[in-house]
Amino acid sequence: MSKLVIVGTVAFDAIETPFGKTDKILGGAATYIGIAASQFNVDGAIVSIVGGDFPKEYLKMLEDNGMDISGLEVVEEGKTFFWSGKYHNDMNTRDTLITDLNVLADFQPHVPERYKNAEVVMLGNLHPLVQLSVIEQMDSPKLIVLDTMNFWMNSALEDLMKVIAKVDVVTINDEEARQLSGEYSLVKAAQKIMRMGPKNVVIKKGEHGALLFGDDDVFFAPAMPLREVFDPTGAGDTFAGGFTGYLAKTGDYSFDNMKNAVINGSALASFCVEKFGPDRLLELSTKDVYHRLRQFKSLTQFDIKLT
Amino acid sequence: MSKLVIVGTVAFDAIETPFGKTDKILGGAATYIGIAASQFNVDGAIVSIVGGDFPKEYLKMLEDNGMDISGLEVVEEGKTFFWSGKYHNDMNTRDTLITDLNVLADFQPHVPERYKNAEVVMLGNLHPLVQLSVIEQMDSPKLIVLDTMNFWMNSALEDLMKVIAKVDVVTINDEEARQLSGEYSLVKAAQKIMRMGPKNVVIKKGEHGALLFGDDDVFFAPAMPLREVFDPTGAGDTFAGGFTGYLAKTGDYSFDNMKNAVINGSALASFCVEKFGPDRLLELSTKDVYHRLRQFKSLTQFDIKLT
Repeated sequence: MSKLVIVGTVAFDAIETPFGKTDKILGGAATYIGIAASQFNVDGAIVSIVGGDFPKEYLKMLEDNGMDISGLEVVEEGKTFFWSGKYHNDMNTRDTLITDLNVLADFQPHVPERYKNAEVVMLGNLHPLVQLSVIEQMDSPKLIVLDTMNFWMNSALEDLMKVIAKVDVVTINDEEARQLSGEYSLVKAAQKIMRMGPKNVVIKKGEHGALLFGDDDVFFAPAMPLREVFDPTGAGDTFAGGFTGYLAKTGDYSFDNMKNAVINGSALASFCVEKFGPDRLLELSTKDVYHRLRQFKSLTQFDIKLT
Repeated sequence: MSKLVIVGTVAFDAIETPFGKTDKILGGAATYIGIAASQFNVDGAIVSIVGGDFPKEYLKMLEDNGMDISGLEVVEEGKTFFWSGKYHNDMNTRDTLITDLNVLADFQPHVPERYKNAEVVMLGNLHPLVQLSVIEQMDSPKLIVLDTMNFWMNSALEDLMKVIAKVDVVTINDEEARQLSGEYSLVKAAQKIMRMGPKNVVIKKGEHGALLFGDDDVFFAPAMPLREVFDPTGAGDTFAGGFTGYLAKTGDYSFDNMKNAVINGSALASFCVEKFGPDRLLELSTKDVYHRLRQFKSLTQFDIKLT
């Protein structure tokens, strides 16, 4: 079992989907990553920042899920990062209605002393310089995974390229992979991104699954076909949490084991979208997860004899 | 080894993609289906119609690929069905420029006597009443597979529903499945289509792969991630030919074997898009196909221990 450092937002979200609408609920990349990774009972720490308005029971919930929160700074006089968005009918696109950075505007991440020797680092979507600062605080991690988005490509590309050069795995969605690489073909896009530094690229295609690329290898995990997608918020972060949580648990960073990690990430993400926010993730039993993993096997495994 | 009856267009296509442009080349649903099915050395027959302008060497090529063409009517004084289309830059959408029905307008299909006892029937995209006529000429096939498209939903829905009620498997693309069922969720759409009669539904998602649905079963085959998609024309028909060809070869119509059939269809379709028209399919060796099937295994198979 390796230690896992998670950096990312811990936030309030207000979400509107065709199925309903929430007030301010628990959200943020590091929240979803941490809750997903906790399925693997890893020794994880969340590095983030919240305001004095952040409920103590949320902090306790993260701790109850096995997350060290000594690197989760609480600025009593500040307000927690707030995001509000509305999904379109197809659930694949959304409009951002509000982004209040609040305490996140001055976030200086501090990795707790006890976690500087962690083997696995998950850099959730944040300003590339914040991600870079976390890398610099680590001793010598074996696997650094970076998530990012088009916002940073548009506003901080030079910094983003510096971070990308230092990480092992980039997770990114299909449109962002195309933007970052200037290639339409996802195969070419992944190859180009790997030439920027990373050994592996995961391209997330939402309801169309995820592709994992290595040197000459490629692996595909479908999204579980669901009768209803209720709220996609956090699915990508949940995927990242399942991916890095599984890798930290097993300590095996080979391509073959990354395949398993991608499936575990996809399985957890398929639960995430079933309810608003992280609610569904928080009620999962080991049995639920095993059942879903068996469904993934039956969804993808076939038996053609090749003699 | 079961016999396979294929009905569909045999045609001329003129295609424009971002990579180039063709004059009138060999095309048509039954052409792609037949060439794909011939990979399995099945005893197949093509039921279709062409004009006097259809080159004799194309007929010979179909025969050389093991297809019986005694049900492929040649109307000497008529002209062959002609379709012309132009693909957009994303290759997922296209404009139809020309559709000249020509001899197809009066097509009355005639299943050759020797093939009326075939076990497998592949009804390529055509007017539902033509598809119905083929069903009525058959003795008692074990598996009838239907391909169709939105054009018939808009212009001949009542006839289409009659055919759908009589077939075992429907293959259809995602947007068409949504239109036919009135459901956005593909899981719900497939369930609704199965309630119209078929035991199985295959939903084709182009570059995003294909879903096979049964009673309580679902299986997913990705499209092979390619550096370049050169010309998508015929990929869906090639999929159908690989699917039915494999099922006819094995004579096993169970859900588990349909999984293998879906993978074989996807493998052949992944070759089809590599060159204009059926050119790539025509040069395939058994070794090429096995190699691609091995790539599909490595693309999708994982090894999570579930104890």
